[in-house]
Amino acid sequence: MEDATLPKKLGMAIRARRQGLKLSQEDFADHIGMHRAYYSAIERGERNLTLVTLERVSTGLGVSLSMLLAEAGF
Amino acid sequence: MEDATLPKKLGMAIRARRQGLKLSQEDFADHIGMHRAYYSAIERGERNLTLVTLERVSTGLGVSLSMLLAEAGF
Repeated sequence: MEDATLPKKLGMAIRARRQGLKLSQEDFADHIGMHRAYYSAIERGERNLTLVTLERVSTGLGVSLSMLLAEAGF
Repeated sequence: MEDATLPKKLGMAIRARRQGLKLSQEDFADHIGMHRAYYSAIERGERNLTLVTLERVSTGLGVSLSMLLAEAGF
């Protein structure tokens, strides 16, 4: 019932948004107060995020949670 | 930067959808293979869900993740 590709597709959607802001992974992670290595793993789809953590990311990207998930195909 | 009300608003949106299906908490939890007490805590907003767990819930409700989050106001 679970979809193993969700974190990967979401990470790709997050990366596309972050690149659209012309920010490096490092600068964006610093901006939202997240460890760089952790943020990098999110973009690679290697973390099963909680919603509250994902909201920190979406707020930093300036996009709603629902929009970000829709862009990831969910 | 985090929003403490996210789990609570999401729980309310999940409850509304589940009630729309005319299913008890217990029956719905059984349907998606989740412990009843854990599912009940989700509806009360007392769990900070991961996306993969939330996807199990949204799939059971027959609604997309993005739609469910939009209904919760996120």
